[in-house]
Amino acid sequence: MKLKVGILGATGMVGQRFIQYLKNHPWFEIEGLMASSASAGKKYRDAAKWYLKEEIPEGISDMIVEEMDIKVAKEHDLDIVFSAIPAEIAKEIEENFAKEIPVFSNTSTYRMEDDIPLVVPEVNPEHLNLIEIQKKKRNWNGFIVTNPNCSTIGLVIPLKPVMDNFGIESVNVTTMQALSGAGYEGVPSMAILDNMVPFIKNEEEKMESESLKILGKFESAGIKFADFDVFASCNRIMVLDGHTEAAFVKTEKDFEIDEIKKVLRKFHGEPQKLKLPTAPENPIVVMEKDDRPQPRLDRDLGNGMIVSVGRIRKKNEKLLKFICLSHNTIRGAAGASVLNAELAYKKRLFV
Amino acid sequence: MKLKVGILGATGMVGQRFIQYLKNHPWFEIEGLMASSASAGKKYRDAAKWYLKEEIPEGISDMIVEEMDIKVAKEHDLDIVFSAIPAEIAKEIEENFAKEIPVFSNTSTYRMEDDIPLVVPEVNPEHLNLIEIQKKKRNWNGFIVTNPNCSTIGLVIPLKPVMDNFGIESVNVTTMQALSGAGYEGVPSMAILDNMVPFIKNEEEKMESESLKILGKFESAGIKFADFDVFASCNRIMVLDGHTEAAFVKTEKDFEIDEIKKVLRKFHGEPQKLKLPTAPENPIVVMEKDDRPQPRLDRDLGNGMIVSVGRIRKKNEKLLKFICLSHNTIRGAAGASVLNAELAYKKRLFV
Amino acid sequence: MKLKVGILGATGMVGQRFIQYLKNHPWFEIEGLMASSASAGKKYRDAAKWYLKEEIPEGISDMIVEEMDIKVAKEHDLDIVFSAIPAEIAKEIEENFAKEIPVFSNTSTYRMEDDIPLVVPEVNPEHLNLIEIQKKKRNWNGFIVTNPNCSTIGLVIPLKPVMDNFGIESVNVTTMQALSGAGYEGVPSMAILDNMVPFIKNEEEKMESESLKILGKFESAGIKFADFDVFASCNRIMVLDGHTEAAFVKTEKDFEIDEIKKVLRKFHGEPQKLKLPTAPENPIVVMEKDDRPQPRLDRDLGNGMIVSVGRIRKKNEKLLKFICLSHNTIRGAAGASVLNAELAYKKRLFV
Amino acid sequence: MKLKVGILGATGMVGQRFIQYLKNHPWFEIEGLMASSASAGKKYRDAAKWYLKEEIPEGISDMIVEEMDIKVAKEHDLDIVFSAIPAEIAKEIEENFAKEIPVFSNTSTYRMEDDIPLVVPEVNPEHLNLIEIQKKKRNWNGFIVTNPNCSTIGLVIPLKPVMDNFGIESVNVTTMQALSGAGYEGVPSMAILDNMVPFIKNEEEKMESESLKILGKFESAGIKFADFDVFASCNRIMVLDGHTEAAFVKTEKDFEIDEIKKVLRKFHGEPQKLKLPTAPENPIVVMEKDDRPQPRLDRDLGNGMIVSVGRIRKKNEKLLKFICLSHNTIRGAAGASVLNAELAYKKRLFV
Repeated sequence: MKLKVGILGATGMVGQRFIQYLKNHPWFEIEGLMASSASAGKKYRDAAKWYLKEEIPEGISDMIVEEMDIKVAKEHDLDIVFSAIPAEIAKEIEENFAKEIPVFSNTSTYRMEDDIPLVVPEVNPEHLNLIEIQKKKRNWNGFIVTNPNCSTIGLVIPLKPVMDNFGIESVNVTTMQALSGAGYEGVPSMAILDNMVPFIKNEEEKMESESLKILGKFESAGIKFADFDVFASCNRIMVLDGHTEAAFVKTEKDFEIDEIKKVLRKFHGEPQKLKLPTAPENPIVVMEKDDRPQPRLDRDLGNGMIVSVGRIRKKNEKLLKFICLSHNTIRGAAGASVLNAELAYKKRLFV
Repeated sequence: MKLKVGILGATGMVGQRFIQYLKNHPWFEIEGLMASSASAGKKYRDAAKWYLKEEIPEGISDMIVEEMDIKVAKEHDLDIVFSAIPAEIAKEIEENFAKEIPVFSNTSTYRMEDDIPLVVPEVNPEHLNLIEIQKKKRNWNGFIVTNPNCSTIGLVIPLKPVMDNFGIESVNVTTMQALSGAGYEGVPSMAILDNMVPFIKNEEEKMESESLKILGKFESAGIKFADFDVFASCNRIMVLDGHTEAAFVKTEKDFEIDEIKKVLRKFHGEPQKLKLPTAPENPIVVMEKDDRPQPRLDRDLGNGMIVSVGRIRKKNEKLLKFICLSHNTIRGAAGASVLNAELAYKKRLFV
Repeated sequence: MKLKVGILGATGMVGQRFIQYLKNHPWFEIEGLMASSASAGKKYRDAAKWYLKEEIPEGISDMIVEEMDIKVAKEHDLDIVFSAIPAEIAKEIEENFAKEIPVFSNTSTYRMEDDIPLVVPEVNPEHLNLIEIQKKKRNWNGFIVTNPNCSTIGLVIPLKPVMDNFGIESVNVTTMQALSGAGYEGVPSMAILDNMVPFIKNEEEKMESESLKILGKFESAGIKFADFDVFASCNRIMVLDGHTEAAFVKTEKDFEIDEIKKVLRKFHGEPQKLKLPTAPENPIVVMEKDDRPQPRLDRDLGNGMIVSVGRIRKKNEKLLKFICLSHNTIRGAAGASVLNAELAYKKRLFV
Repeated sequence: MKLKVGILGATGMVGQRFIQYLKNHPWFEIEGLMASSASAGKKYRDAAKWYLKEEIPEGISDMIVEEMDIKVAKEHDLDIVFSAIPAEIAKEIEENFAKEIPVFSNTSTYRMEDDIPLVVPEVNPEHLNLIEIQKKKRNWNGFIVTNPNCSTIGLVIPLKPVMDNFGIESVNVTTMQALSGAGYEGVPSMAILDNMVPFIKNEEEKMESESLKILGKFESAGIKFADFDVFASCNRIMVLDGHTEAAFVKTEKDFEIDEIKKVLRKFHGEPQKLKLPTAPENPIVVMEKDDRPQPRLDRDLGNGMIVSVGRIRKKNEKLLKFICLSHNTIRGAAGASVLNAELAYKKRLFV
């Protein structure tokens, strides 16, 4: 018997990716589609501006979108909800649900709170220990588990094995981010054709703070952040999906390029050990060709769950350069949340 | 009476920009158009795949393209030549001309040789002192003066006042470069639509070495390179003209953001003092809007000779982030060469 | 002394073009900027999302945007207003102004009404005779003169000399229209990247009806529409500015390709005779190169007021094919309105 | 046991699509990859600039590319070859192969010859009767069967049921064609960004002649061409794959829109009856949404073998407008050839 899941913000771009990822899921079944009042009451196919190439899954197309109200969860007897709602409205809505059932959220609102796990299953699964602390402190029946910003996740996955093996002193990263990160209507074509935009609101702040929490250690009192600095410069370019990032990493110990490739290639974590349904066989693919990864060609590797790393270079001692690419609405959003839920479920942290 | 100038590689994209910049020049007059044997003998309008919006200037359109042979310079009694030829063939051709007359070259071939000035007039005009050394050493009547790679120049101009005022410990820079940098046929549309390419052959090497020569000091024995490191990550994006760069600069002394803005805004050099015809009033424009500079909107400032700097940020002590943008075929190529020639002429280094 | 003019809808894309076209106008001076209540009260530079490359003209930048109320016209003693407001709200607003002063409107609302001139100065200047009929019938002190839809105008200009010389039996036209036609936020980048959209709401209806009114004859009772058919298929493609159209024209009399080129080239009208300030020397440029016109290269000819016609072909008797291109926010909008006002002023139809 | 097939021009874009379509084919097995001398002798993965998203199939990647010589066919005991070679060199090469074995060619060279079938299996399968005539006349053991130009095929499929049910008097069609039609390096990004090109060499001629042969009747003496006119205007736009066409069809009998939709929807042919492996269930999908088909969203329907038809409109009596879209390198090239081979094989026209 599958768990019954609901989606908050089901009509948006990340909501659509949730549907895509959950429609044939072996453990989860979509029983509730929730969105803003403007969509509630409509059939899903009328409420959503569907942007994916594959058609709306049959069972979903005719489902009626409902209000983002905990009553809906109760009526449908939902076991968990996934959330892809705007940060401005998430505070209250996610809390209302978390009081009763687990919430796996792609929204930034709760990410940096002390007792909220911000998890990438391959990187910091032990942060899920915060769940217990959280439930006690807030006196909730459910809880909130968050996944990071779409540009953070593509960076921390390769940083983790580098950190574990060579230590990190500081990171400078420049992103070249896809249009879909801003939502379907986020970037007017007039703004970006023959152009790029060197600014994404709040994005650098998220990368610079979230990375250090994720790469930090769970200790009894909470998370001890990683103690190096991350500096980010975030840019929008004319690509549909796939965030590309140019990283400069100052390591603590010196390294050889081949050592870096080796630790990246053999990197894996709990999702691989536990064979979670959404986990790629290897979370990182190292590319040898000079001009890869490229977003159009590589963003869909591992159904969008693989981070591609290429152009691994070294100039001076302890100075590592590489390019990483990940699919921003899959590994960077819906897929990340689903993987978190799979991990928590497998570890019997709920139900 | 104007000086008679020739253009080597007159049919290519930079060659076209030379024509655009020289057609109404107060001191120079185009008297020779030279290109490969495939073009020689044809009318310019038939030989060039003209890509600029404005039409081919009238006097130029019907001129006959000639071989890249010093005889042509003699026949036309040329005073100087500008060169925009491929690096692979420049070694011999530029030497042949330099034996007799001054060559202002946009080509990379000679840039890093000890006795060849690599000059940005606002940044290191004193490097022109190498001319004398060069002529003696090589026993040439003419000489070669080079300008840097199109992505180097946009970076060193803002680095110069930062270095002079706060010192520089290291620079990490990620470029997002325009298509025209690769030549008209350089990037197939199939390669770049809904995509970016994280690799440009030899570009990072050029940025990392040229910057340090330009920011170095002229001493009697030659140039003493700047003693910090520049690390570059070079990318191609779908923009026609204008290279955007995200720089992270570790300074030696701490700074306030407003101090940086101030030194950038008041920065100027010999081209401004001497009021050279191609010099912009101010070489740097500092932008205050969060989302500027942008290539389509800002690349043509100052007729393409201004470097726009924006998003000046500081996170930690001594860590400066900014975005800079410059027109790659103007300030980054033809305009740079013309400005070099203007400076050398005004300083009576030839004729 | 210049006439004082106001702009309704001054903050939008066509509003910006009005400002660009009027800022140094020899006869007109901008004295009033009017827009929706959301903008009213703000400085122009804060109210408008300025999209043009050249900066907001100095005098305009600090002007306060006002409500679209006839009182504003009276306070500023405006002689005429230009209108670039959405069709949905134009009915009442334009009427309120037209009761008192001349309105030159780019909006579709009144175009097809019997007593409203729909004018392209080179094509049907005599339709301005409707002004008198209109003022009488509506008992207005002012009047409304409209210009056609941005895709209509590029077609009717070349059709006019063809019709006059060879007669027209029917026209099939397929448009490939620029993004700016939909307004700055009209087309999301996600909708159009690696894509095209074969639909523009109401556009085909406008082309099919407006063309026949413009090419019709003024008779004492009103306009007698042209008696052939125009069939249109309208598409959006990823181009910033410039509508390209592929026309198939069945003529009444047979023709030679050279005859067509000749009548297009020598075509001119009252704006040329009267040397109106905004009129191009020739309204049509005929291009001989196989692959021209192209929007990026040719849209700005004649400051955006020229229609470029190329690929003039004939397969069978009486079947003419050609490609025409015109700048949709200049010749197709603001420039068209200004030219109408210039013509009406020169003919002393007001003031 | 599968038939052994070879591919001529295996490294190009259509060659890659052949590999994609044949790699798991139930009847055919790739045994020979042939290309120009520049590629011969290299491993396929080194010889081809692979542009498809999915990786080079495993068995193919290491195969050695060979010369386009009939000896290769003999060594490998090939049963048939598919050809995707440039028209300039096809005359002799295809003949050399056809003397011995069947050639299914995507190249234009032989398409319009009297005794060469130009076939779309759903439209004119009976034209395969020319094979017998061809073999006799040319005294060949093999034969050549061609498929049409990529823009022709998307048009003739919907024209066929319209012609059969309502008759056709004339067709005007404007294409908006994808970049891949010109080959990987065919369209420089500098040529097409913020632009379109209203010209594709020889394309209009092909559409205007091929359509009438395909829609013609096989008679004992050969093909009697359809007796109406097709006029085409061919344009390149910035889309990766998928040719969109705007058709105006003058019919002989009047029609209702619903009748058109009905005949398009129920249209099918021999590939459907015979359940050929590459045949889509229905060759045409009729779309009801105003803004469909769109290339990015619809080009891959039916694995790229479906023609999408939308915006079916009628203005006047007998004047039909519609938009059709098909995948130019699949239904318009490799898939078309494979389907031809499947049909010929199933009908026992060889082996």
